[in-house]
Amino acid sequence: MQLARHGATANGGVDRQALTPAEIEARAELVQWGRAIGLDPSVDAIANLFLRLPGLDDSLPPVLVGSHLDSQPTGGKFDGAFGVLAALESVEAIVAAGLRPRRPIEIVSWTNEEGSRFMPGMMGSAVFTGVRKLEAVQGISDRAGVSVGAALQQVLAAEAQVPRRQLGFPVAAFLEAHIEQGPILEMEAKTIAVVTGIQGKRTFRVEIEGEENHAGTSPRSIRRDALVAAVDVVQALQQAIWDREDVVRFTIGMVNVVPNAPSVVPGRVSFSIDLRHPDARTLREIGDLIPGICRHRAGPCAVCVTELLHDPPLEFPANIRQRLWTIAQDLGLGCLELASGAGHDARYLHYVCPTGMIFIPCKDGISHNEAESITEADAAAGARVLAEAVYSLAA
Amino acid sequence: MQLARHGATANGGVDRQALTPAEIEARAELVQWGRAIGLDPSVDAIANLFLRLPGLDDSLPPVLVGSHLDSQPTGGKFDGAFGVLAALESVEAIVAAGLRPRRPIEIVSWTNEEGSRFMPGMMGSAVFTGVRKLEAVQGISDRAGVSVGAALQQVLAAEAQVPRRQLGFPVAAFLEAHIEQGPILEMEAKTIAVVTGIQGKRTFRVEIEGEENHAGTSPRSIRRDALVAAVDVVQALQQAIWDREDVVRFTIGMVNVVPNAPSVVPGRVSFSIDLRHPDARTLREIGDLIPGICRHRAGPCAVCVTELLHDPPLEFPANIRQRLWTIAQDLGLGCLELASGAGHDARYLHYVCPTGMIFIPCKDGISHNEAESITEADAAAGARVLAEAVYSLAA
Repeated sequence: MQLARHGATANGGVDRQALTPAEIEARAELVQWGRAIGLDPSVDAIANLFLRLPGLDDSLPPVLVGSHLDSQPTGGKFDGAFGVLAALESVEAIVAAGLRPRRPIEIVSWTNEEGSRFMPGMMGSAVFTGVRKLEAVQGISDRAGVSVGAALQQVLAAEAQVPRRQLGFPVAAFLEAHIEQGPILEMEAKTIAVVTGIQGKRTFRVEIEGEENHAGTSPRSIRRDALVAAVDVVQALQQAIWDREDVVRFTIGMVNVVPNAPSVVPGRVSFSIDLRHPDARTLREIGDLIPGICRHRAGPCAVCVTELLHDPPLEFPANIRQRLWTIAQDLGLGCLELASGAGHDARYLHYVCPTGMIFIPCKDGISHNEAESITEADAAAGARVLAEAVYSLAA
Repeated sequence: MQLARHGATANGGVDRQALTPAEIEARAELVQWGRAIGLDPSVDAIANLFLRLPGLDDSLPPVLVGSHLDSQPTGGKFDGAFGVLAALESVEAIVAAGLRPRRPIEIVSWTNEEGSRFMPGMMGSAVFTGVRKLEAVQGISDRAGVSVGAALQQVLAAEAQVPRRQLGFPVAAFLEAHIEQGPILEMEAKTIAVVTGIQGKRTFRVEIEGEENHAGTSPRSIRRDALVAAVDVVQALQQAIWDREDVVRFTIGMVNVVPNAPSVVPGRVSFSIDLRHPDARTLREIGDLIPGICRHRAGPCAVCVTELLHDPPLEFPANIRQRLWTIAQDLGLGCLELASGAGHDARYLHYVCPTGMIFIPCKDGISHNEAESITEADAAAGARVLAEAVYSLAA
């Protein structure tokens, strides 16, 4: 609740988008909380923030544990923040118990997981793991025209007292706790989900170019109305991608109309496509339908489809999943296995080190929403599993 | 071309929206041009701007002649501006000819005809003629949250040297010259259209309320996706309103999605409807279908439909039309009669005084577009008809 003051919205949610003043405040408070229990902060060139508990053998690669502090523009208090604070609580418990692990443990807050201000998301973990190049993301701009590079400079200037860290140092393991962002744990009355893997995701930008004209004078037959074309394209996509099993996740979350004036026939419409599926082949096949449907259904308008991301489905290693399962069972917590519908920084860490995730329930499965809610008991249970797991990996 | 420097865009168009610094500049230049030929400026409380040539009997109500200086966000150089400058040229010609009319003549630039920054448009003429109350429009805000009242204060402060004028003084007649904003004159190879009347127009705001959710985790079956609902509603409206004759003008020009983030299921979508038809009964009947269709096709989302405007079709008086026709014929100009598809300030003046309009051709019928274009010869021809007509009405 203290962290949620940074970027708090009137409706009880959080607007703490990546690399904004609100996130800078939240990061400063996290650094302070870490210093209070003896953790050394550091920050890398993409502004991933680390808080280090030294190990008995401090030359060993650390175990990383954390998530992200940035939110959607109308986000909730817990998406990302829970994972960072559960990591802090875990290390605090280890310190309070007088334990000292063999390996260092580092709490991490990855930069721009959400991707709502700067697309694509999971940017900090992607750059850390080498999936994306720092130079390639620095030029990406938000809607106000501010680049990632310029926003990073502001954050790093605000954190001039925090030592710099190299990008992409060796990591022994990564653990991430997160809210489920779906209804299963609540429906099944369980407390902990051991995450089996992450479904695949493809994202596209569709740009439709028509011609601006006067709403009162231009006949329908001569219009090249980019919005009419966009509506036809979207309906055709919905029909082509519809599955009886309701496993496909197909979302058009962003639509921009130009000039967006009531009495002007729209000359340009762009929209985003977010497509996810747990099966690699299905994801490839249905995603590959998109450019053709867009081109064939845009009537007299021109269409440009750009694929921004294609992350195939993945499975976390069995030994990490088994360790998390055993810990949860030993703590007497009801648990189940679950695939993640959402993307997480754990995706990219999985490419470079043994990685695992747990979920705790969130009310009605609602997230990316100001109404996001969890219980104190579930939060504590998640932090207990995380503390045991991170210590066992570091010991 | 000189006027089009104010708000000039990189693509050769104009972004000179109502009550902006660019419009303030354009108004200042117009006042200067008027003063140079002995015209006295005045401004009323809604910032309608007048330039007065005194009459021999200066106590008589004036003949007004003009249009508007504001533009769409990606507008052209001529929509509105042509009518104001043709009025200035007309009065300049009368003065240069050493003529002095019995009645005063006033050039007018009406405030916010376009309605792209502050909805609805034709605001200045509506307030001048009593169709709307000044108090009612002052609270309307643009997307940045600036109210009409605050924007008016800025304009009136910038024009502190221009005497204030009462709202809604008696008017003897009103004439407006404008570009056609359609292809008919060009297709028929004529120079002047005498406008028979203005088709009817209804505008609506549709607001669809769903629920924000996570694009990767929420199954289609539980989503209340406001964009999916909006697409269904728009397609149902298009089908219901479709006419073989292509006389109905139906435009969705503005769409706003909240939160407008690629990985968030949209929680709210609002869009504008602009509906026009020359027949009063048809306009009433098809417009009345809209709220029901919106409600029935929005699936699990809530819908609110607000009608913002219902202007029935109108016909300008026969004696003004006859006068304009005769003048154009006598000048040897090819002419035809045409109903206006677009709305104009002449609509509201028609409610309070004898009113008439002429059109000149515009290239390919394109307007509300940076590519708007006219020829010098057509501009001169329009100004000649206007000069003769305004002098004959004032004499």
